[in-house]
Amino acid sequence: MKEDITINKLKKSFSKKDIDEMEQRYRAAFINSLSGFKSGNLIGTIDLENKSNQTNLAIFSSCFHLGASPALLGLVSRPDITARHTLENIIKNEVYTINHVNTQIFHKAHQTSARYPKSTCEFEATGLTPEYIDNFEAPFVRESNLKIGMRLKDIVHIKMNETKIIIGEINNIIINYNDSLPIDQNSGHINIEKLDSIAISGLDHYHSTKSLARLSYAKPGLTPKILK
Amino acid sequence: MKEDITINKLKKSFSKKDIDEMEQRYRAAFINSLSGFKSGNLIGTIDLENKSNQTNLAIFSSCFHLGASPALLGLVSRPDITARHTLENIIKNEVYTINHVNTQIFHKAHQTSARYPKSTCEFEATGLTPEYIDNFEAPFVRESNLKIGMRLKDIVHIKMNETKIIIGEINNIIINYNDSLPIDQNSGHINIEKLDSIAISGLDHYHSTKSLARLSYAKPGLTPKILK
Repeated sequence: MKEDITINKLKKSFSKKDIDEMEQRYRAAFINSLSGFKSGNLIGTIDLENKSNQTNLAIFSSCFHLGASPALLGLVSRPDITARHTLENIIKNEVYTINHVNTQIFHKAHQTSARYPKSTCEFEATGLTPEYIDNFEAPFVRESNLKIGMRLKDIVHIKMNETKIIIGEINNIIINYNDSLPIDQNSGHINIEKLDSIAISGLDHYHSTKSLARLSYAKPGLTPKILK
Repeated sequence: MKEDITINKLKKSFSKKDIDEMEQRYRAAFINSLSGFKSGNLIGTIDLENKSNQTNLAIFSSCFHLGASPALLGLVSRPDITARHTLENIIKNEVYTINHVNTQIFHKAHQTSARYPKSTCEFEATGLTPEYIDNFEAPFVRESNLKIGMRLKDIVHIKMNETKIIIGEINNIIINYNDSLPIDQNSGHINIEKLDSIAISGLDHYHSTKSLARLSYAKPGLTPKILK
């Protein structure tokens, strides 16, 4: 007998009309929950044209993998105020940093989404610490355990909703760890759970993770093995 | 005294040269780990030009939120064989489904990434069950607890690496739940952790989640509150 894991479940359906009729902020939270778990990253930028080298730090849940060779990451930038300072700085300077949010700093990371005036330094306002490396003019977040220096490669305009996809190439990576470096030396896999990285769902929900398994490369007719 | 959560941490840095010199498959796993946690979704499609209405089911870790109004989701399609059947069907039929992978089906979901010939039905091969609704010609996954019917709106070509971003608008949503519908009636937030959805990291690592907190809308000068 085939196992049926949907037995006794209740069901709720939403039509396009149901979605269209949702109040705007309700719909934003609802639709933002649908894609699944998201990455949580702090994007660090600097305005070098500003006399005081004004930095900016903003949380994004939209960083995604775009390719390994060249090593590309995408970021979705919505046409709103919070994201604009970040986008402006990236366009001007063409460098930025992507820093994993972890369980120790997610409150501070969330606070960067407040609509501060451009003159406010989110590092200072939230108690996070800017950190620099040689020959790279964008601030990393000291308290993050996985930090990526990025160089802008392209900005793709999504006509349908005035969204922009910022595409950058990885320039360098910094990993901070406690006991042993959580990189599988056979495969190259980085165990970001051991770096305490969090996942985001919806607009405001933060989650830690618990490993279920790594599964071996799938082949037709073979059941995937659990990798150690 | 300022709390310093990076005290006593070890540090490992990788330069662009280090990345360039990595062996190809090692680099793929390494770079795929960097963006942070990812969504895990099964994409259901059908080939209506095929006499037997051949279905296809493929796991994607690249579904991302693109906008709430209109309600848009993006999918990154790499230029490889596994993704191609899905992309071909989406281009032909302009409808597809996005189904959250959960802790009960992640082994089966992973198995859909095996390079089956096009004539193989991944539903049959992996033991997942196709499910249809009226007036929508793409198969949902019965065992998923959050299923989204999608209509193709645009395909964006990323010139840098021959990747395509499939952009679709949400047509309908089906949620299966046990006791109470996990939607916050005030905000619209869906608690996908209660739907047992998993997160993916890297190429092959599956994670369940544990809620840390939902945080209130951030405002300058105010500490975010924890929402119930």
